[in-house]
Formats: sequence, C-alpha cells, structure tokens
Amino acid sequence: MALSKNKIRAINALSKKKERDESGLFLAEGGKIVSDLLPIFHCRTLVCTNSFMDEHPLTKAEETILAEKEEIAKASLLQSPPSALAVFEKPHYAIDNGRIAKQLTLALDTIQDPGNLGTIIRVADWFGIEDIICSQETADVYNPKVVQATMGAIARVRVHYTELEEFLRENKEVPTYGTFLDGENIYEQELSSNGIIVMGNEGNGISERISRLIRNRLFIPNYPTGRATSESLNVAMATGIVCSEFRRRVL
Amino acid sequence: MALSKNKIRAINALSKKKERDESGLFLAEGGKIVSDLLPIFHCRTLVCTNSFMDEHPLTKAEETILAEKEEIAKASLLQSPPSALAVFEKPHYAIDNGRIAKQLTLALDTIQDPGNLGTIIRVADWFGIEDIICSQETADVYNPKVVQATMGAIARVRVHYTELEEFLRENKEVPTYGTFLDGENIYEQELSSNGIIVMGNEGNGISERISRLIRNRLFIPNYPTGRATSESLNVAMATGIVCSEFRRRVL
Repeated sequence: MALSKNKIRAINALSKKKERDESGLFLAEGGKIVSDLLPIFHCRTLVCTNSFMDEHPLTKAEETILAEKEEIAKASLLQSPPSALAVFEKPHYAIDNGRIAKQLTLALDTIQDPGNLGTIIRVADWFGIEDIICSQETADVYNPKVVQATMGAIARVRVHYTELEEFLRENKEVPTYGTFLDGENIYEQELSSNGIIVMGNEGNGISERISRLIRNRLFIPNYPTGRATSESLNVAMATGIVCSEFRRRVL
Repeated sequence: MALSKNKIRAINALSKKKERDESGLFLAEGGKIVSDLLPIFHCRTLVCTNSFMDEHPLTKAEETILAEKEEIAKASLLQSPPSALAVFEKPHYAIDNGRIAKQLTLALDTIQDPGNLGTIIRVADWFGIEDIICSQETADVYNPKVVQATMGAIARVRVHYTELEEFLRENKEVPTYGTFLDGENIYEQELSSNGIIVMGNEGNGISERISRLIRNRLFIPNYPTGRATSESLNVAMATGIVCSEFRRRVL
C-alpha cells in the first residue's frame, strides 16, 4: 500500500493539538520510539522501511505501509526521516486515588515547554514514577516534540490532565511537596516514600492557589550558599534532582 | 549609529564556528543574558533598544547601536527579536592545576548537543563548579544556542577545551569519577569534596581510553532496581543529579 497524499496530510495534521483532540490520535516518530510504543498502544497506521519490518516481524497495526525513507520524509516532521513513524490511539487513563495514596506521584502546575515535559516524563520513568498529574494548561504530552523527548517513556508513565487544585483537595491525606526559592534545604528534610511532588511553571513557579495546598516546601540549595549564581535551576533538572533525592532515601 | 547591512552580516556570521574561531568573537542575545555578560566580557558591539539602555545606563561597549526591535530582528538568530544582542570577545582562560587539585571540576568527553552543553554549564553554576574541561570534540560553548541555554552562567563558569586524556594524566593525583551503566550505586559511594567528574557522550558514554583513567565508577540507580525503564538518563540530567549528590555531602 502506498503513502497517498491524503495519508501524508492526515499524519502531518497531528502536529496540531486541535487535530489530536478531535481524532484521539497521536504521532510517534523514530524506530526506537515506535518499537517501544507498538506493544503498548493501539496502532492505526504504521509507516516503515522494509528493514524496520524485518527487525520487528511481530508488530501489530491496523494498517502497515512499507515505504522508502525518501517517501517517509514527506510525512515526517523530523529533519532526517526516521525508519518508522506510527499513528496511535491516545490511551484513556483514569486517576486511581488508591494508588496515589501509596506511591510517589508528580504533579505539574503548567509546564509550558514541550522539551521540559518530555524530559520530566523520561526522568520520572527512570525513578519509577508511574503517574504524572498535569494542570489543564500544561503542554500536551501528545505533541510530537514531547513524544520525541520522552524517548519512549510514555509507554511506562501515565500522564493525566485534570484540575490540579481539585486533585490535591481530593488527596489531602497524601503528603505534598513542592520546590520554592524560599523552601527548606531538601537534603535535610524528611521525605516520605509516598507523596505528591508539585513542580511549577518555567517562569512563575508554583501558582499561589496551588502552593496553599502544599505542606512541605523544599529548596535545592546552591553551592556554596549565598554565592551569586543563576536565578534558578531549569524545572526539568530540578524535577530530576528532587526525584533522585526521594529515591535515595529508600534505595 | 545605524545597523548597516555589513554589521548585520558580521553578526549573523557568528552562528558559524569557523567565523567565531577566526574572529575570536561570539554573539549573545536577550536582555537578561547580555546584561549578565556585559560586566564580565569585553563587548565590541552592543545593539539594543532605547529602553534596554535606560535600564542599563552604565553598560560599557566599544560601539553601541540603538535600534528598534524590528531592526534588531534582522541581526538576530532568535525567532522573536530580543531587546539587546551583543558581540563579545571570547575570554582566554588558562587551566590552573593548582585549583583543579582543590575543587570539584567537570570534564566532558565529547558532549555533542548544544542544548545539553548549555544545561550542563547552568547546573554547574548552580552547584558552584567553576571550571569545565571539554574534549576538543565537545560542542562549542560560543555557539549562540549554547550561550542561550546557559542563561548567563558562562559569566561565572570557565569552559576550557583541551586534550582530555592529557589533562587527566596531568592531574592523576586528583580523585576521578565517571558514570557508567555498570558502575556502583552513587548514593552508597564515598565522594570527595574535590575531584574531577567525567561525563560522556550522548550516544556512546565515556570513551574507552578516557574510562581507563577513571578510578571511581558511579551509577545513578533507577527505581525500583531491575524494573524495565528508559535505557539511560539524559547526560545533562545525569550531570545535575551527580553534582547534587556531591554537594549534598558537604552542605
């Protein structure tokens, strides 16, 4: 089956959030990511080279289109064409508050940069965080740039969008943490093995109404204390350091 | 003084490494970064709006060109024109082995992505690391994308390019550390307050000939141990977590 102009147009359209929302579909590109996601998500269309197919003979897709790289390039949003791209159905996850009570969960208060969101999902995966709760204003996890930046971690981490304030109120028995420039030295604080860690917006940090719901205010101290330095750490970097510190306590 | 076509061409040319090497100059863009770098580096040309000048009346530059944003846009490499851009002379730093013996230093074995290099410099600044030793193959710190990603941290961190193997041999009395997928759990290792931390290439990690010179092989354990996860952490993220862990011990 050939890669028709209509098909190319339909794939390209998935770079737009409106199109993803209406169709319930998303695009993943690159041999590694596509092969990570194929066993997890329902694949509507797989476009790949013969050699990708040879290496992954058991792939399941409603429709498989074999194409040369030059042809894949027409549908691809990447600068150099991948050996595979695939259109998947977005999964539907429910937030399980029973699980939230027992585990470590990340909550994102309006992370705007797709690269930051992807990096956060990847580091969450490394540290075994299985649910990320995002405010409605957080970047879309199904933006192809985010999918790319996760390096396949969305196969293992459930990303939810909800009213963050309501979510925190519903789970008010669970310990809550957040990073603040006037917070307490994280290395010296007691950190629980379960809890919700809130990370804030790139420019503004955690919003006022969310910060009122956070019990434990943390800070990653710069070194040496008091030295002139950058104003803050990048939010994805701060997330990784905080997660590392939580997991260190139990490892 | 107006922004002539020749001037625009000369500024744009600094996106090329060859041009930067030959001229000994680099370009910084954005009001915040330019104002961070102006007191530190010698400025050849400052192009800025009237309002930038009003906010920074004491700036020193050989040549200052006041321009509207639409005019600045012609010289800028950014998508939205900044309130200031500046051409600086590259600084000349010597590696001081006396200092290396006493402090914590980062060494980069061929970091290729400009964004990663910029993020590493920014997190180094946060944790008070003042020297970064790069292999000759590492991305150029004066690439405008790197300058951008450092968020001004290059004003406080000295970045050197040298033969990394030779550098490590010269400083063989200094404790050496590196991250390896088969290294020891970093949380359980003794970490000294001085030392050289080597971080490896995005795809290949630390090269064979460099790894032979590293005494302490570290690993950031994923959680829970043995669970399927991403293959590795992004190198900038790993650098941040390792630096955090070194500084935690002395804070």
